[in-house]
Amino acid sequence: MADKPVAGAGLRGQSAGSTALCTVGKTGSGLTYRGFDIKELAEKAKFEEVAYLLLKGKLPNQAELDHYINKLKSLRGLPDALKTVLEQIPKDAHPMDVMRTGTSMLGNLETEENFDQQKDVADRLLAVLPSIICYWYRFSHDGVRIDTQTDDSTIGGHFLNMLRGEPASELHAQVMNVSLILYAEHEFNASTFTARVCASTLSDMHSCVTGAIGSLRGPLHGGANEAAMAMIENWKSPEEAESQIMGMLERKDKIMGFGHAIYRESDPRNEIIKQWSKKLSEDVGDSVLYPVSERVEEVMWREKKLFCNADFFHASAYHFMDIPTKLFTPIFVMSRLTGWAAHVFEQRANNRIIRPSADYIGPEKSEWVPIEARS
Amino acid sequence: MADKPVAGAGLRGQSAGSTALCTVGKTGSGLTYRGFDIKELAEKAKFEEVAYLLLKGKLPNQAELDHYINKLKSLRGLPDALKTVLEQIPKDAHPMDVMRTGTSMLGNLETEENFDQQKDVADRLLAVLPSIICYWYRFSHDGVRIDTQTDDSTIGGHFLNMLRGEPASELHAQVMNVSLILYAEHEFNASTFTARVCASTLSDMHSCVTGAIGSLRGPLHGGANEAAMAMIENWKSPEEAESQIMGMLERKDKIMGFGHAIYRESDPRNEIIKQWSKKLSEDVGDSVLYPVSERVEEVMWREKKLFCNADFFHASAYHFMDIPTKLFTPIFVMSRLTGWAAHVFEQRANNRIIRPSADYIGPEKSEWVPIEARS
Repeated sequence: MADKPVAGAGLRGQSAGSTALCTVGKTGSGLTYRGFDIKELAEKAKFEEVAYLLLKGKLPNQAELDHYINKLKSLRGLPDALKTVLEQIPKDAHPMDVMRTGTSMLGNLETEENFDQQKDVADRLLAVLPSIICYWYRFSHDGVRIDTQTDDSTIGGHFLNMLRGEPASELHAQVMNVSLILYAEHEFNASTFTARVCASTLSDMHSCVTGAIGSLRGPLHGGANEAAMAMIENWKSPEEAESQIMGMLERKDKIMGFGHAIYRESDPRNEIIKQWSKKLSEDVGDSVLYPVSERVEEVMWREKKLFCNADFFHASAYHFMDIPTKLFTPIFVMSRLTGWAAHVFEQRANNRIIRPSADYIGPEKSEWVPIEARS
Repeated sequence: MADKPVAGAGLRGQSAGSTALCTVGKTGSGLTYRGFDIKELAEKAKFEEVAYLLLKGKLPNQAELDHYINKLKSLRGLPDALKTVLEQIPKDAHPMDVMRTGTSMLGNLETEENFDQQKDVADRLLAVLPSIICYWYRFSHDGVRIDTQTDDSTIGGHFLNMLRGEPASELHAQVMNVSLILYAEHEFNASTFTARVCASTLSDMHSCVTGAIGSLRGPLHGGANEAAMAMIENWKSPEEAESQIMGMLERKDKIMGFGHAIYRESDPRNEIIKQWSKKLSEDVGDSVLYPVSERVEEVMWREKKLFCNADFFHASAYHFMDIPTKLFTPIFVMSRLTGWAAHVFEQRANNRIIRPSADYIGPEKSEWVPIEARS
């Protein structure tokens, strides 16, 4: 693909730099983080262990992991000024705008003064992003000022605890763990590339992450699991789902949660989250949403050879855990922060400012006309 | 240049899309906005007219310009929640963090719900960005809550009025007008490219602009005029400047305000702002800063064939108007908003998500080791 003309084509297939973090869609592997297969990580690792792998370059030993988890636990508190800012944001705001604003505000209060601080800034963001979204959500929706310093040992459990006001079940904490691992890193996707472009001006970490959140907010990028949920929650049976999907395909409606810019035959994350969605479905005694989701998957493959990407079964999985749909993309942020930050480290370590050119399609020369002579 | 390998090279010379907004460094033209030569615009146009040109696609007639200026004047007020947010930001914060946070917060309060609103959102940002920075600056530095709804007819005059608490002289308003025109647009520079990557996910305007501000914050991009000021303000005479510059060149120190990623022989904006810096120098009776600046220019050309870019004489020009150095880059934001927003319109009108690839340089396959067996 690298020989195709690229103008207007979203740089598809063009290399914009190098990375040691991730492979996407390479033969035989599907998705790897620093060479580790995503299936193995999702089965065996803690998300905090994967965060360590991405941010520090290797898997931690037990002492390192214990220390890291304790460090992250200690960094969950919100400065008062940030709480005040979050309290100014209305209930009907877009939660990604809240994440973006909270991160940006934190940059005023805890500015990254030099790049020696970059790992600590990343750890702080990893620890505090769940606090930001939950503090705003609970304040604006329930009128309570939550304590964000819980004793939960995992980030996923911590998030659910803040959201619901009670510790998560083991199953829910496990699913959150897997979900956070699956979303952690994905090479030069648009939000990560945003972070790298920003990093290439030698800007600070909060700017890079704020920009990445803004890009992830777009419906072509991070919003797919929310859009999938909005679609499937309307259907009462697999039969209804099938007939609705057939109608959508006929009208050429966009169906979210399927296909991928890079993967051609399947998204390796799908079979993993699908299993967990099934377990949750059994756990809550669901007889609609999971069968509906499976039917949609079947029909899309049968009719269009389109496969579920990571987002599709995330919709039902999150829904079974009673997570409000509008918080799906903020969970993506809580996870992808690790990939973004690791890419910022990489960009800084071997930097040239990212400044492409453009094909000019405007007028060659425009003649100035005095304002009184303009039509 | 398009045939060079691009990995790690910042996409230099690679086309990442098309634009009708601007040419940079084309033979015989230097810099044009929609085909209009920058020299002609800087000499004859109002900044609001140039903003109209970039955002609406043509030069306005008198009625259109009057209407536009009045519209912008009516949009200078800050919502109370945004004022509260700005009041939470400490005096020693980086002003670009303030701009980024203010823009992001506004996105919560006045969310762009669909792209039909894009021109109004851009106009609102154009009108309100000076209010955001000045409200914070005056509150944090002087302890006053300013009224941001002044009656000044120009954006540049409005900014100076809020900053100083009195209307600007005609000369100062004129220089601000020229400066805002010079910085308005510059093709696919890193901050504009950030805005386009963000726009390519179909995210909202506030996300695009917030991300762009974050990229402009980087010292390789927007901070050059501040860095130039920090350098030249130490020197008491052209002779001292020359000897210091010679020493810096010998030590291979980076000297900000010189050279350019695209321009090869000169930056067409330099001769324009240089003239105005000279006028201001005469106006304030300066006998140091302007001669120092001129000497630095001479030495850099003589020794290295490096020319001043737009930033170098902006430093002295802003300084002669008593603008605090740390507000130089926020002025850049107030201007470049027009280019960013116009690029977002273009990206949305002919979109494909910007998602490049990367050269993988990590391990082929990593073997999972149980945590108790790790060293």
